[in-house]
Amino acid sequence: MKMKDTQESEPPVYIELNRVGVKGIKKTIIRKKDGKYNVLLATIDVFIDLPSHKKGIHMSRNLEVTNEIIERSIGPEVEDIELLCIAIAKSCLQKQEATRAEVEMHADYSLPRTTPVSGTPTQEKYELIAKAVAWMEGDEIKVRRSIGAVAEGLTVCPCSIESVQHFVSENFQIERKVVAELPLASHNQRGKGTLIVETDEDERLEANYIVEIIEEAMSSPLYEVLKRKDELKVVVDAHRKPRFVEDVLRMMIKGLTEKYPDLSDNAYITARQENYESIHRHNTYAEKTGFYGEIKEELNGNGEE
Amino acid sequence: MKMKDTQESEPPVYIELNRVGVKGIKKTIIRKKDGKYNVLLATIDVFIDLPSHKKGIHMSRNLEVTNEIIERSIGPEVEDIELLCIAIAKSCLQKQEATRAEVEMHADYSLPRTTPVSGTPTQEKYELIAKAVAWMEGDEIKVRRSIGAVAEGLTVCPCSIESVQHFVSENFQIERKVVAELPLASHNQRGKGTLIVETDEDERLEANYIVEIIEEAMSSPLYEVLKRKDELKVVVDAHRKPRFVEDVLRMMIKGLTEKYPDLSDNAYITARQENYESIHRHNTYAEKTGFYGEIKEELNGNGEE
Amino acid sequence: MKMKDTQESEPPVYIELNRVGVKGIKKTIIRKKDGKYNVLLATIDVFIDLPSHKKGIHMSRNLEVTNEIIERSIGPEVEDIELLCIAIAKSCLQKQEATRAEVEMHADYSLPRTTPVSGTPTQEKYELIAKAVAWMEGDEIKVRRSIGAVAEGLTVCPCSIESVQHFVSENFQIERKVVAELPLASHNQRGKGTLIVETDEDERLEANYIVEIIEEAMSSPLYEVLKRKDELKVVVDAHRKPRFVEDVLRMMIKGLTEKYPDLSDNAYITARQENYESIHRHNTYAEKTGFYGEIKEELNGNGEE
Amino acid sequence: MKMKDTQESEPPVYIELNRVGVKGIKKTIIRKKDGKYNVLLATIDVFIDLPSHKKGIHMSRNLEVTNEIIERSIGPEVEDIELLCIAIAKSCLQKQEATRAEVEMHADYSLPRTTPVSGTPTQEKYELIAKAVAWMEGDEIKVRRSIGAVAEGLTVCPCSIESVQHFVSENFQIERKVVAELPLASHNQRGKGTLIVETDEDERLEANYIVEIIEEAMSSPLYEVLKRKDELKVVVDAHRKPRFVEDVLRMMIKGLTEKYPDLSDNAYITARQENYESIHRHNTYAEKTGFYGEIKEELNGNGEE
Repeated sequence: MKMKDTQESEPPVYIELNRVGVKGIKKTIIRKKDGKYNVLLATIDVFIDLPSHKKGIHMSRNLEVTNEIIERSIGPEVEDIELLCIAIAKSCLQKQEATRAEVEMHADYSLPRTTPVSGTPTQEKYELIAKAVAWMEGDEIKVRRSIGAVAEGLTVCPCSIESVQHFVSENFQIERKVVAELPLASHNQRGKGTLIVETDEDERLEANYIVEIIEEAMSSPLYEVLKRKDELKVVVDAHRKPRFVEDVLRMMIKGLTEKYPDLSDNAYITARQENYESIHRHNTYAEKTGFYGEIKEELNGNGEE
Repeated sequence: MKMKDTQESEPPVYIELNRVGVKGIKKTIIRKKDGKYNVLLATIDVFIDLPSHKKGIHMSRNLEVTNEIIERSIGPEVEDIELLCIAIAKSCLQKQEATRAEVEMHADYSLPRTTPVSGTPTQEKYELIAKAVAWMEGDEIKVRRSIGAVAEGLTVCPCSIESVQHFVSENFQIERKVVAELPLASHNQRGKGTLIVETDEDERLEANYIVEIIEEAMSSPLYEVLKRKDELKVVVDAHRKPRFVEDVLRMMIKGLTEKYPDLSDNAYITARQENYESIHRHNTYAEKTGFYGEIKEELNGNGEE
Repeated sequence: MKMKDTQESEPPVYIELNRVGVKGIKKTIIRKKDGKYNVLLATIDVFIDLPSHKKGIHMSRNLEVTNEIIERSIGPEVEDIELLCIAIAKSCLQKQEATRAEVEMHADYSLPRTTPVSGTPTQEKYELIAKAVAWMEGDEIKVRRSIGAVAEGLTVCPCSIESVQHFVSENFQIERKVVAELPLASHNQRGKGTLIVETDEDERLEANYIVEIIEEAMSSPLYEVLKRKDELKVVVDAHRKPRFVEDVLRMMIKGLTEKYPDLSDNAYITARQENYESIHRHNTYAEKTGFYGEIKEELNGNGEE
Repeated sequence: MKMKDTQESEPPVYIELNRVGVKGIKKTIIRKKDGKYNVLLATIDVFIDLPSHKKGIHMSRNLEVTNEIIERSIGPEVEDIELLCIAIAKSCLQKQEATRAEVEMHADYSLPRTTPVSGTPTQEKYELIAKAVAWMEGDEIKVRRSIGAVAEGLTVCPCSIESVQHFVSENFQIERKVVAELPLASHNQRGKGTLIVETDEDERLEANYIVEIIEEAMSSPLYEVLKRKDELKVVVDAHRKPRFVEDVLRMMIKGLTEKYPDLSDNAYITARQENYESIHRHNTYAEKTGFYGEIKEELNGNGEE
């Protein structure tokens, strides 16, 4: 007697589902970049769509496809993890008779940095985000790929600095020009920036640059260790580059357009900044999403005025 | 000397931002429903959009508006927390010169239940989700409101039950008809269902019904305490109502259409189910989003075939 | 036919277990203090010990006892939630034939505050911790009760301020005395302080005072909303009261001895401070645990030198 | 002009602190075991004690010591990560003039497994816990080291199975002997087991064995992918090995004594089991802590009766 294929049987109700699959698969991935190895502990979600006449998807197939592609890639190593996402998404389309597949990976990774004064080498930690959406257009498979990162940094409040400058001018006998030069107090805090760029399959961006763009947009990067003279420079420099969440977001987008001036207009940008306010229990937040073409027009159009 | 209004000053780059505001405001809200009081500990996010020529928003205004509306409401009490969201969103539009405002609340709340055999009264906990988006169309304020809930339940795997039935038929001298009646083993687990309905300002749904629809879609509700005879009934009944994540999702939507047959076609549905698989480290997941009109057509069209 | 009592049957191995029970029970509790109502959403853990000859505990009894005592208390209302913990622990001892029972509650709660300059009324959120351990000594039930709180605040780094003062003295023509008065830059961040006091059953401390002691030990409290002049005062004052994690911890303990000079020597103190460093990805941390008698001796002994 | 050493200056209050340091340092560590490489993404906490006359510790030294020892170890690779903890703890003692140092690491890691029927190779994920405490006894450094793991597994409720057997006997014409053999329904769920063993510096245990002991104590291990015949076997076998949290805990300790019969009496055991109950919102929990000598006596003493 053969077992019934439960997943292929009649569903209780005829409704197509947008995304069905598995969340939170954990995989170790070896990434080789510029001759250096980087080990990523990735968390992966794999979804496909489900037509109205099928009861369920074969969840284990999503997992087998993911395993197979990641195992196979460990031999020749991966350079860009987006390529893994694309391969898994395409393979899911074929093996599951789905019309759309979506694969998303999040992974911690580290980059070498140097502290600003003592030149101490450090390993700073970031989060990498990669994604692929593949779908059928007739007999053809179409793909959109995303690469992005999350980086933490220091943000100094511009409004608070101006208040303190005002306070010092009113209460101390110091010239206004000097006051403007002094490293005066403010509230400052850890902020978390996210920048993700979605493109067609044939365009690619480099995750390490995205990390740099995010860090540069804040008042200062963070460091795993700072000697005292490093700490002084970080604090003084950051207070000369104060940034609201709104500023950080805009500088992120400006940084992106400077690094990637030729990115296609149909690239889609997602940028977010969240600050863990040191004087409040809540966080401040800013978000910008939109097509690159429109964003570039905004930048140019307004910049020229 | 007057302090400079930093937020109104020139931004570093001219880009409009979609959402700027505060996340994670915590507020205690008194909700009065059918003569009974319910205390909600809500976490609230309040965002507005920011035109390209302004450096920042006045974050504290979002907070003042939120405080003022919640304090004021504590007198005459709130019946629906969506109304609070709408009031905050509208007030933000007016006080911040924004063109769009978005307010989202999440709150734990409890409903009285009774265990199935011993009839023990219990207090079960759910999460309430309310949201309002308000925007300007000419001089007029338009609003979309959302109400939803997150409820946990028990889900029994249908595929695993069929495998075990097959196994029992092959290995025991029991009639197939009897096998089909037996409460046989399967893997089962906590699942988490989410159902959110967005409508125009003048339509309303009842959160308590949404909780019931989600719970009914799973194999069984959860209980804070079960006597042994209750536990037996829960286990036996749940194994007679096995559900994949896909099934749960479809039954949720079916439940919604039965409870609210007259909901407008432009209502927008978001439904999600996630199961914490007891035999895997990862979760299974299904999602459906779409306009109510389209979903009802799907249900009817296919059902008639 | 009677069902077998599985929990009372033979265990697979004869080992006594220290703590067996349920974690994460959620309950709404009405607390009445000084004529005012406060609603707490509590998360409760209830454990008993299990002798080596019994297979399991009756988990549902822990739950029934908890429900019963909390329901009953909603009539006459609770003043101190430690009393609820004590009642549940004692009742577990009786109903489960255990020799030791332990009950712990965590709850969010809010206190009214006023901003420092504009006098705006706010509702600040804290976490309340209550605990009871009850055990048998012969035929007598002995109890130790704990009350504590978690409060967030602003912490300004003293070392960073001194570096910046040094930097300003070297680079600007400003008198050292004036430099010492200026509100100069530093890194600052949200910190989280915890203070818990365990005593015999007949001693009691007031949770609201514990919150005040923790807040006072940091550079400044946090506020849910601050007008610009409030923010200025918070920033300037906090930079005149810089605190390491170590300082915060010591000031917490000093604050406790000043508020409760007559607390018994056998009170046991747990104090912790964790700062979310704004210039690093990691946190700094300090902890002190010990009997009150010893701590007071340390304070006196060294203070006199 | 020299900068003042803030940390060495007078504290505000003379109280010794038990633990001062940094939490949440993230480090990538290469572990070489039996000729195979394993990459661990570790989260590390490093604490020392602080005498009453010093204002603060030099936080950056903890970090420098940690960095230096981990970097150095990447050359000759680490076999046991406890050795890293010990090296960091000892080095902290020397560089910080502390009398006690404590280092704790948590890391995700994976082990190869094979599914029970189809023999599919999988990579299962676990958490590794390593710890070292080093302190001065006169001029000598003493060390206690800990190794442990967290593993998830499937747990089937024994009480529920017995209820269902009883129900089947009463309602179906099936012999009791056959009923006892049938794979009948129960509630089952993911459980999380933790087992940590602390010993003197010269004793060592193997983390991979600890993982096996924890998994074996539950009803079944979890698998990242299961073909249908694998799933059937996992479900049927698990229902023949039902386990309460209490059972799991006792079987863990029994497993440890069988694998390590010669472990010293002064080894200290910490064992915990938490089940995410599929029929409740709360979890069940059991814990056992104690010296190995006492635990072995309990096992023998009672076993002989």
